This record gives sequence, C-alpha cells and structure tokens, in this order.
Amino acid sequence: MTKEAQPPKWLKATIPMIFWLSVPTISQAQEEPIIHDAEQMILLQQHGERWAEEDEEISAFLAEIREANGGKPPNIVNILLDDLGFGEIGMPDLDVIRGYSTPNISQLADEGLSLMRMYTEASCTPTRVAMMTGRMAVRTGTTEAKAVVAGDGLSAWEVTLAEVLSEAGYETVHMGKWHLGDIEEAFATNQGFDYAEFPIHQQGQMAIMNETAEIEGMTMGQSPKLRADTLELDKTFRTNPHAMVYGVVGSKNGPLREVNFEAGEVFTQDHYNRMEEGYKNGTLRELERLSQGDKPFFLQWWPQLPISFTRSDIVEAQTMNGGPMAEATHRVDGWIGEVLDKLDELGIADNTLVIVMGDNGPFMQYVDKSGQSDRIYRGGKTDHLEGGVRTNAYIRWPVAIEAGARVQDMIHVTDLFTTLARVADAEEFIPRDRLIDGLDQTPMMIKGETYGRRDYAFIYEGPVLKSIVKQQYKFHLPPPGSNPIAAPIFDLYKNPREDRPVDAIYYGVGFGIPFVDMMKRHLGMKMQYPDREQAHDVPYGGIENLRPETQALVARMSAMKPK
Amino acid sequence: MTKEAQPPKWLKATIPMIFWLSVPTISQAQEEPIIHDAEQMILLQQHGERWAEEDEEISAFLAEIREANGGKPPNIVNILLDDLGFGEIGMPDLDVIRGYSTPNISQLADEGLSLMRMYTEASCTPTRVAMMTGRMAVRTGTTEAKAVVAGDGLSAWEVTLAEVLSEAGYETVHMGKWHLGDIEEAFATNQGFDYAEFPIHQQGQMAIMNETAEIEGMTMGQSPKLRADTLELDKTFRTNPHAMVYGVVGSKNGPLREVNFEAGEVFTQDHYNRMEEGYKNGTLRELERLSQGDKPFFLQWWPQLPISFTRSDIVEAQTMNGGPMAEATHRVDGWIGEVLDKLDELGIADNTLVIVMGDNGPFMQYVDKSGQSDRIYRGGKTDHLEGGVRTNAYIRWPVAIEAGARVQDMIHVTDLFTTLARVADAEEFIPRDRLIDGLDQTPMMIKGETYGRRDYAFIYEGPVLKSIVKQQYKFHLPPPGSNPIAAPIFDLYKNPREDRPVDAIYYGVGFGIPFVDMMKRHLGMKMQYPDREQAHDVPYGGIENLRPETQALVARMSAMKPK
Repeated sequence: MTKEAQPPKWLKATIPMIFWLSVPTISQAQEEPIIHDAEQMILLQQHGERWAEEDEEISAFLAEIREANGGKPPNIVNILLDDLGFGEIGMPDLDVIRGYSTPNISQLADEGLSLMRMYTEASCTPTRVAMMTGRMAVRTGTTEAKAVVAGDGLSAWEVTLAEVLSEAGYETVHMGKWHLGDIEEAFATNQGFDYAEFPIHQQGQMAIMNETAEIEGMTMGQSPKLRADTLELDKTFRTNPHAMVYGVVGSKNGPLREVNFEAGEVFTQDHYNRMEEGYKNGTLRELERLSQGDKPFFLQWWPQLPISFTRSDIVEAQTMNGGPMAEATHRVDGWIGEVLDKLDELGIADNTLVIVMGDNGPFMQYVDKSGQSDRIYRGGKTDHLEGGVRTNAYIRWPVAIEAGARVQDMIHVTDLFTTLARVADAEEFIPRDRLIDGLDQTPMMIKGETYGRRDYAFIYEGPVLKSIVKQQYKFHLPPPGSNPIAAPIFDLYKNPREDRPVDAIYYGVGFGIPFVDMMKRHLGMKMQYPDREQAHDVPYGGIENLRPETQALVARMSAMKPK
Repeated sequence: MTKEAQPPKWLKATIPMIFWLSVPTISQAQEEPIIHDAEQMILLQQHGERWAEEDEEISAFLAEIREANGGKPPNIVNILLDDLGFGEIGMPDLDVIRGYSTPNISQLADEGLSLMRMYTEASCTPTRVAMMTGRMAVRTGTTEAKAVVAGDGLSAWEVTLAEVLSEAGYETVHMGKWHLGDIEEAFATNQGFDYAEFPIHQQGQMAIMNETAEIEGMTMGQSPKLRADTLELDKTFRTNPHAMVYGVVGSKNGPLREVNFEAGEVFTQDHYNRMEEGYKNGTLRELERLSQGDKPFFLQWWPQLPISFTRSDIVEAQTMNGGPMAEATHRVDGWIGEVLDKLDELGIADNTLVIVMGDNGPFMQYVDKSGQSDRIYRGGKTDHLEGGVRTNAYIRWPVAIEAGARVQDMIHVTDLFTTLARVADAEEFIPRDRLIDGLDQTPMMIKGETYGRRDYAFIYEGPVLKSIVKQQYKFHLPPPGSNPIAAPIFDLYKNPREDRPVDAIYYGVGFGIPFVDMMKRHLGMKMQYPDREQAHDVPYGGIENLRPETQALVARMSAMKPK
C-alpha cells in the first residue's frame, strides 16, 4: 500500500527520470507489490492516484459482497472452449453468418459482461498456461501447442491460479482438456487442483486420428490400410496414437489412473464423445458435491469441443451449417446451458462467477468442411494476427457485475489470473518473486467501460515476439535485420484485418518509434526477469495403470530423455 | 387468383413437364398474375398451395390493420444509406470492432425486424433502380453507378414504387440522394414523387472533388494548383466538377430549380454538409406536413452520408475510430434518431413502416483513412462477392411486425417494391407486362423466419451475370469459354468469405449442374422479356435556372447526344 514500485536501473535510463518520482502502487494485501512489465509502470505513473482511490472503493465493495455471502468469496466456474475465435459464440448477429446459434452463451452475455477486446495467446497450451499462471507462456517456456508425447510441460516452480485459490481456502476441481504437459509435475493434480479428470494430450490423437475418422476417409494419409506402402522404408513415421494415454483421473498429489480405455483397444469417435460427455456430466456432478461443502469452489471445465471432424457425431443436423465443428459448437452451447441451469437449481448462481471464453482463433487447417471459418479478423490459431489472438469472453456474476454490458477496454488472458485472485481475496498469494503479466481488471469488471487498466499487449508466436499492440494500433515486428522504423503499423479500428498499414504521412513519420521503445522496455525487463525453461521428465510419471503398449512407448521415450 | 402462371414454351422443354401441371399462383388483386423469373415458378410449384393459404391470412390481417387505422394503409419511411455493407450499422458487437456506435439504428433493430440476408445490387444506381422498380437493374439498362454528366438515366417506361403508391392514393416525397440519371425523365419528380429535393449526381463531385478536400490534400491528383502541368497537353482531362448541377428542388412533373449554389461559386465541404443537413431537416419538416394530410404518405430519405472524407467535418471526434466515414456513420445515426423521435412526437409511429438499410458494400477505394473497412464478407461495392451485395436492413412497423426478431430467410432489394406495394394495398398497380424480380415477402415480415419466399439470387456486376446464389451455395460463373462444371461453388455458411470452393468429392460431383440449369432458365426468360436500354437525352432537361457554366457544359454534351 505504501511501498513504491521501483523500475529496474536500465529502464530508468531509457525514459525520463520524471516518471519515477513518487510512483504510487496498486494497493496490495501484502507489503511487496506485484512485479509487472515496464509498460505498466508507465501507466501507473499516469493513473496511479486515481487507481488507488478506485481500488479502495472496489475492495470495500468486494468485502461487502463477501459479508453478504457468509464471509465467503464467490465460487468460480471457468469454462474455456477450444479454438473458437472472436465472433463464434454468444453473438447472434455473427452466428447467423455461419448458420448456427449459441443461445445459452448469448443469454449468459445478456446476463453478464461481454469483454469485447480479450487478447489470448495464439495457441492452446500458451493460452492455458497464461490463464493459469498470469504469465505469458514465453516466460514459462511452454510456448507451443503440445501435439505428441514429448516429456515436457509446465514447471512445478510456476504458481497456478488453482494454487493461489487453494491457499485462500478454495476447493479446486478441473474437468476436461488440460494440455499443459505429459509429465507428472505438469498434471492438473500436481498444479493445485484437489481433483481432476482430464486427457493428457490434445484432441489430434482422439478426434482426428481415431478409427471412425479413418473409416470416413478423414485420415486417409495416416491409415496404413488406406495406402499402398510399397516404397515406405520407415514404418513408424506416421504416428500410431493408440499407445498414448487418453483420459486420466486423480486427486491432489496422488497417483492418476487411465480410465475408460483397455489395453489393445482402438480409439473411436464414440470414445471421444463419451469422454466429452463424461467431463460435462462430471462438471454437473461436481457442482452438486461442491455446493454442499463449506468452502468456496473453483471449478474449471475445459471442453475439448467444438473440435470434431467426423460425420458420425451428427445423428441429425441441428444447424443449417451442418459442419461437425458448427454442430459441436451448438452442442457444447447446450451443455453450457445445463451447467447454468444446475447453478440455478442449486441456488448458487448469484454468488458464482462464471467465465465462458475461447482460447484462440480457429485453426485454419480445420476450416471449410468442419463448418468453421475465419471472419472479421484475419488469421487464426498460431498467428499473431487478431484472428489468432482475439476471442469472445463473457463473465457473469449477478451480485457484482451489471447485466448486458459490453466493454471495449483491452484485457489479456493473463489478467484473469490476477483479477480472479483479487475477487477471491487471494491477492496475497500471488508470488512476488517473478514477473506477472496479468493486471487486476476487477475495476473494469465492476465499474464497466473505461475502467480498464491495460492499453497494450505483446504478442508472440511460440517464443518469437511478433507484434506489439498499443491502444488501437498494432505494430508488426520486422524480420531480423530490418529497420523497425519501416515496419508496418495497423489501425485496428480502421483496418481490423491488418492488411493495409497506416500511411506514415497521415499518421506522422516516426510513428513506429514509440513501439520500438516499448519493445526495448519489454525485452529489457527480461534481463532482470529472464524467460524460463519448461520442465522435462519421463512422460506419464505417476500414472499407475499404463497399458503395455504405453509402457513400451515410455521406454523408448526414456532413452531420449533430455537431462 | 384463379388464373395459372404459364411458363414460356422454351422453359417447358428444359424441365420435366410434371412441374407445369396445375401450378397455383400467388393470390393477386387483379386477374393477371405478376410475371416473375423462372426460378420462382419452380418454387411456386412446390409451395404454391401453402402460400395461397398464408396469403389469405395475411390479406385479412392487413385489412384489419387498415380498418383500425381509419381505412388507411400505413405510412412508409424509406431510409437508404450509402455504401454501408453488412455489419456496419445496428449491430453493436460489430460496431465495436470499428470503434463507433449506431445506437439509434440498433434501437430500431430492437423494435423491429432484422433482415439478416438482404441481397442488394453491387452498386448505388443499380440498387436504387432495383428498389424503385422491383426489377434488377440489368433489365432496365441502368447497370452502372453514374459518376459524370452522361445524359442518361431511368426510362419513363419503368414503373416506380412511387408511381404504384401514388395510384393507390399515397402522397410521395423524396429527399436526398437519387442518382438514377441526369435527364429529365429520370428525375424523382418525373418518376412518381409529388415533391422532391435531391442532388442530380453522386457524391464524388461534392464530397471528394470539393475545395476543402483540395486544401486538405485529399485530391492532390485532381487539383491544378497542386501539380506542375508542364507536360499536360489536355487541360480538360481531369474533371472540373463545378459546372455540374448540384442540388435541385421541384414538384411532380414541374420544372426543377438548382438551389443553394450561385454561378461562379466554388463547392466546399461546408456546402455538402449544409446540403445533407438540409435533406435531414427537410425530412423532419415534410413529416410534419404529411402527418397533417388525409393521405397515407411515402417519404423517402436517402442520405448521401456516410460518404465523407475531409477532416473539417469533424469539429471534435465523437468516435474512437475518428475516420470521417466512421464519424459520419455515427452522425447520420443521430439524424435517424431525430426522424424516429419526430414520428413519436407526431403520434404516427405505430402506423408508419420504417426501413433503414445500406445500398451496397463499402467501396474498397475509400477504406483505411476514411475509417471504413471490409469485415466478415470479402469484397465491396462493385463486387458480386457477398461483401459487395450484402447489407444490413431493418424494418419497423409496430402494429404488424414483432419487435426484436431476426430472420435468416433470403430477401432481395427488388422484393421491397412488391412487398411495400402489398402493404400499401397497391398490388393491382404493379405492371403485368414485364418481368418483376421482386417477390412479395410480406409473409416473412409478419410471420417471421421460414416464411420467406426466395431461395435464390442472380448477381450481376454491371451488365454481366457473375454469380448465382441458391440456398447457402454460391456459384461463381466461369469466364467465357470455360466449362461451367469446373466453376467454383462456395458454401456461404462454412466459408462466408468465398475463398475456399467446396470439395467436389465431398459435395458430390456434378454439384454445379443445377446452377447451370438455373442460369439457362434465367437467361432463357430474357428471350421473352428482354433487358431494356436506359433512356438517353440532353442532360439537365427541365432545370430552369442552369448556371452559365452549366449551360456551356450542356451545349458540349448536346453535340455528342446519342440518338
């Protein structure tokens, strides 16, 4: 509260000293302030006093709400959908374009807050890590969407939201896609969750490379039955996914068990659908259980849907689009309706904060037949373009958030870590020994538009910084060796598709310079707080019933284990 | 009612005879049915009986509403905005993307019906002709957006909606952009309007090539002051617009007078803004006058906005976008709010049908600095792509149309001619001696989604048929000489941007064949009802106060007048 944030020495030298005279801090429950990126210190210098006043008001409001709720902070239900970019859920005008509807998410939007400018990371694992740790994925080393058995994942050193909330007295449960690594320390149950049911990997193994897809001719290029291999020397090049672990179940720090799949079995779309329905039913079941406990709860349901490619999913099309992903988007919307109904039925809807959002843009390799498509923004998953990193995000919390509001303020997926920690009265458990990208956006959530505390984002593709957003402008970094003053800048209001750079005469020559300064400050902060490596280990540690084919796979992997 | 539609002989030969056994007709006030395109006869064969039943119900409902309104059909206020494609007005989720808002149009949408799949023509003049005549522009010869003094325009032979409604007892007024020709017979006052105030041409002359734009450096390429013309032999190549007629005023079949511009004067952005504000104020004034009369009225206000390019329009930016066209879109939305308020104030809102729509997609030559941009759909004005021919369209009529509904049924701008004629109880005045593309969509308007009567559209660029839409599919015609079975087909739900043709194996080889059949039927009907020429004449006939510079221009034009 009284202690002042101090910029690192090198940063002091790069911007005028005047900035560092008496910088107030965001009020903190503990003495030490949270360490944010350099850009935030600049905003703090400009808005710190106003923010400190707002923070007092907000803290009093949150305390009042806890008071009225028997002293407990709200329950949190965090629903993260896969590969759904901006305009794919909860916006009827846009659903129409694609010939399907998501009425339950639309209703949630009407009852809550629509975050109109949510930046995620460009891919599954990075977004999920960023949400869980409040740190951009690049800082944790988990920069790629994990696709195969790799023996790596989120380090135990990272502090997750589940750990923060556990410290504050929450009961924590994870259901569905996790995707933060296939090694023991990365598993949800070793990253703060009291109980979890989740697949170890992503959906490629399950929804694309299954037997149904092979029969339907979706994976002709993979199937040994569907191609003559006369000239094929290497018989292992094309992956056989059936040795990989599918879904596991377990409790905090305990062993995991693979479930619903036997040795020698072949995975089909039916397995996938049952697994997905299982996570949804598990979510409903856990809600009942958790609502009877004394603790506030943090329940995370991360569906693998709408990832779906085979026609056999569709008994009778429910959408005019008819593509498997459009059908699945509509289906998962119905499931979200079931979860929201359950909250009503249990009488806990008012004091439960519900988030529904997408994790990144559509994967352009999936579009077309799947029924998914790009729209509005250019690009998709893995791209630093807006199409890759802008998603719909809705938050409902009836006792605290005004119904039906839209905010255009910028927010980043890492902000959810910090914001939810504050809502849960758990800020003191946010670590102070590392750089936290997530900012506290509680004021915007409660007071609405113009109360946002972010006007910038650094966008990476994997480990490479690709663009810098500030206000409505986006600077695409030039390739190595090119002079950044010639790099293109886009006005996202005037050109949302990022295909016509601004005219340097119209916007002022040298418009790129402040972006270069931002880049230097951002990279400079890494001298003090370097990016870390992810963890490496033998895959599948702590899973007690590995199938023989999985054991053979682990033995091969162990031989190549990096130190 | 009893008489049956008969297909032309050649058409009978191309499709099975069974189609033509006992084809029922849409019920008509007069004996002769309206002549529609071949495609509609096929739909009529499939749905005629159901439609006839619905039509009886609808007619009874409309009669009831007239009864309750002192025997009068509703007033009609028809607001058509320029160069605003789909997603630019009335959709808050999409306004956000571009950093502006259109709250009044959004409110109109909430109070009325959103037509989510309105097809227009690809450019100003064609869309306006199509709306006025119920015929695709190609049938009337007015296929291009008129940009210069051309001595041509809509033929007197064509029958406009204003003429149809006049016959039925309406008082008719037009304010603002007209753009159907610069010759006497094409003027609004000679095409059915009792009174009109309108510019003769489009906005290029006024909003782009004015002195303000020159000073601001928008038109450096045009200005003789801003370029050295050392090697310029032809001093007339770059247009001097000031001799062209600007705005005129007049009454039915009477002379017109040019107003608010003197001989020798130079046009500025200020003139343009005053002109635009004048049409808006004239609309408010006419509403007051018309509301005191005994007749139902048809008041058409076609703003020239949001076309606007100079910064001097913007005293203080009202939008985060800040571009002149984004600012103007927000401004014209405010004006629409004034018109809607006036209807309330006059106590006539309930029995007034209000339409607000855009005429075609954004002109891609204007985007970027103007603040306008493409989004969702690919392409813009002049393109047959969805970006060129899809616009937002809203209809409010409180006593008849359910508030807040969206319909995904297809509608074409020509349908407004036929639909409004029916609403006005004026169907009998629709001519029966020509092909009318417009279908009666009153059932959809009143009964909602799935009551639409169209599942096809033929899309032209100028006089060239470029694509055929049927259901969710769009067939891009191949270039002359190419075999149409290889032409690309797009699934608009799965690929709204029309950049990934459907896979012929997935959709069935030969999927192009029914489109080729549609094309043949459509072109075949033209053997019986050929496309016509537009009218040609000396420009500016009947304008009684031409300035000396304009008279000189006309003299030059007269010398080249085509016979």
